[in-house]
Amino acid sequence: MTSYQPLDIPAYGHAESAYGFAPCDGGVCAAAGIRAAGFSAGFRRNPNRRDLALVVADETCVCAGTFTKNRFCAAPVQVSRERAAAGRARAVVLNSGNANAATGDEGLEVARTSARLVAEAVGCSEEEVLVASTGVIGVPLGLDNFRTGVPACVAQLDRSAAAAHHAARAVMTTDTHSKQAAVVGQLPGRDGTPGTTIHVGGFCKGSGMIQPNMATMLAVLSTDASLTAAAAHAALLSSVKRTFNKVTVDSDTSTNDTCVLLATGRATVDPIDEASPAFPVVAAAVRAVCESLARQIAADGEGSTKLVTVDVLGAATDEDADVVARSIANSPLVKTAVFGHDANWGRVAMAAGKCGVAFDQRRVDIDLLGVPVCRGGLTVPMDEEDMLRRFEAPEVSIAIDLGMGTCHTRIWTCDLTHDYVTINGDYRT
Amino acid sequence: MTSYQPLDIPAYGHAESAYGFAPCDGGVCAAAGIRAAGFSAGFRRNPNRRDLALVVADETCVCAGTFTKNRFCAAPVQVSRERAAAGRARAVVLNSGNANAATGDEGLEVARTSARLVAEAVGCSEEEVLVASTGVIGVPLGLDNFRTGVPACVAQLDRSAAAAHHAARAVMTTDTHSKQAAVVGQLPGRDGTPGTTIHVGGFCKGSGMIQPNMATMLAVLSTDASLTAAAAHAALLSSVKRTFNKVTVDSDTSTNDTCVLLATGRATVDPIDEASPAFPVVAAAVRAVCESLARQIAADGEGSTKLVTVDVLGAATDEDADVVARSIANSPLVKTAVFGHDANWGRVAMAAGKCGVAFDQRRVDIDLLGVPVCRGGLTVPMDEEDMLRRFEAPEVSIAIDLGMGTCHTRIWTCDLTHDYVTINGDYRT
Repeated sequence: MTSYQPLDIPAYGHAESAYGFAPCDGGVCAAAGIRAAGFSAGFRRNPNRRDLALVVADETCVCAGTFTKNRFCAAPVQVSRERAAAGRARAVVLNSGNANAATGDEGLEVARTSARLVAEAVGCSEEEVLVASTGVIGVPLGLDNFRTGVPACVAQLDRSAAAAHHAARAVMTTDTHSKQAAVVGQLPGRDGTPGTTIHVGGFCKGSGMIQPNMATMLAVLSTDASLTAAAAHAALLSSVKRTFNKVTVDSDTSTNDTCVLLATGRATVDPIDEASPAFPVVAAAVRAVCESLARQIAADGEGSTKLVTVDVLGAATDEDADVVARSIANSPLVKTAVFGHDANWGRVAMAAGKCGVAFDQRRVDIDLLGVPVCRGGLTVPMDEEDMLRRFEAPEVSIAIDLGMGTCHTRIWTCDLTHDYVTINGDYRT
Repeated sequence: MTSYQPLDIPAYGHAESAYGFAPCDGGVCAAAGIRAAGFSAGFRRNPNRRDLALVVADETCVCAGTFTKNRFCAAPVQVSRERAAAGRARAVVLNSGNANAATGDEGLEVARTSARLVAEAVGCSEEEVLVASTGVIGVPLGLDNFRTGVPACVAQLDRSAAAAHHAARAVMTTDTHSKQAAVVGQLPGRDGTPGTTIHVGGFCKGSGMIQPNMATMLAVLSTDASLTAAAAHAALLSSVKRTFNKVTVDSDTSTNDTCVLLATGRATVDPIDEASPAFPVVAAAVRAVCESLARQIAADGEGSTKLVTVDVLGAATDEDADVVARSIANSPLVKTAVFGHDANWGRVAMAAGKCGVAFDQRRVDIDLLGVPVCRGGLTVPMDEEDMLRRFEAPEVSIAIDLGMGTCHTRIWTCDLTHDYVTINGDYRT
């Protein structure tokens, strides 16, 4: 009998290993020059839940941002997109419980006024404050909670890991836990010696309405590396493209996706531009934090029990790889099979075949959980008991080789469960 | 306060009303010259379930077919696509319990041999028999059940409504009930007098893996009108495009989608071609049967509790209308909101906004269950008690006007429920 070998999946670079960066504590406050706070300002009915977050740099600093491509984009997205383009910011204010989306001109005024309240409290210009909101769509967002909450939240700003944690908690909606990441490492010094130590950290929220499109759910990142505005933008975009934009929980793209990077420059003197030898190192560190946060989002997808990694190999183009990976990752039949611990590779084949990408089924190989289950489009006998044991792990891998070329991609998703239906059948009530 | 009027949804033509066609009994056997049977041949473990269906014309007749566009198309699709192109057929043999998909050259041989067994039993050439299969993917389909089942099934062929019902039941998988439709009406006669009476009937199956792409799930239609092969093909394609291809249960396109029309010509003498005054009448009757069957599929979507009709109005192009309608109909958040009886129009707005179609949110109007809930992108106060009462109905309507043009479309889907997850998390076991 033929001996089948698992697919040879390309190593996906982890910045930690590539450049010696190590995970560290502190989340968004890991970067020098950043303070954060999370406060219970009354946006949610539960008075014990924090719902207002602030991230404030000690001084005005470089910033970059990416935002949702949804046409029904929310008021805070419209305000922050414009301000992030200027490349400089002092603070980000975020609320949960109400998305301030589909709220018209009044919603824009609320977003701007909330920023003004923060500017007055921390002492900067209104344009240096970015805003982000998450929660229910189509309900007017009141200003009262900002008027009382912002001064109280500013009073609690702190550099501690606890403060970063409070901010991360304050943006949660259906998330079951807060999502933070941070790394520390050294830039290349002269003659190969270790150089300046820098940090990149951040938090995010996201659990449903997750298929970011050139943007993310809500995420705030920070670094104490000194970057030009263009370098900050480039580092953020290249990272988001390969991390947050490769996550899908339910194929639904939020109206409020926002991802902001603040670069305080506290750790380095000269601004790093895109041509600098330090740039790829910083960019890799940003990507490492984004990847950690992106995986946390997929693993915490609404109702999910499994993090699912989908690798597509042997695609003719990057676009083909992405389309096939997304088709598999968004297929309700694939996702329910994972939930049911069912090694039903026929559904993976179906999802690959339905999306319009050209391939010959006789050249398709599929692995589930590292086990060859399909070779040349035909079934490979498998040990069902062994598969059931492998399904006990918190992560499930699906890999498909289309046999059409050398392009590949990786996407993260989760399974589709009863709890997804419960959570979303009963969201507003 | 402003008085809001519901959106003015264009009347979608029902052939019954347009041409005086009326529903009738008999399903696929309503057409003269058609016999059917459904038999328990052992493809399924449950010996009480019929799993082999036959539809046989008394003589070789005109046929047309459309098939899945999934690249992982099943063996019977490959065989039937070629044979339907010839435009003539005598019989269709269908089995449930095994899709004969991803089964390679052996699967093709099984499909051809099963057709040969039918040809021998009814007395026609092998090429005049079409085959279709539905069930699990990637498992070899054995011939033994065909060898014993086909002669027994042929012996039961009958023109009765009961026989049509047995055939319709034999193709069910996760369907909760069989799906049949038939209409009877008159072709235009000379000088405006009523002409020949014709019938169009059929059955189909489909409940999951439903987003047909220029094809359908399994469906067999028949008519006793005499059609040229080209006219049969044109009538079938124009109907399928506006009915089966506008249904989506879970955005997953089957590997086995097959829709076949047999035209026995028993009711009329001269073959009707596309230029004939009778052609639009026959085409409308075919569309009426397809629309009834398509609605039955959406209403019986796996685990569904509601049939959901999505109307998109005011689109700039037909393509835009279709993309937006599909985005809404496939959105897990929209579908779970319907399940939860939640008039959460923000999710409809999100789904319209995420799909890349250009519009200005300030011009968007949305109705849920016939009630205006969004005008010019802003919320309209609604009576939540009234909405909850409206959600008790078996059908839910969602309508959105993009304010960009005059194109419109209608799509049918269902809600996303716990039972969808249960059914598909536990399909093979």
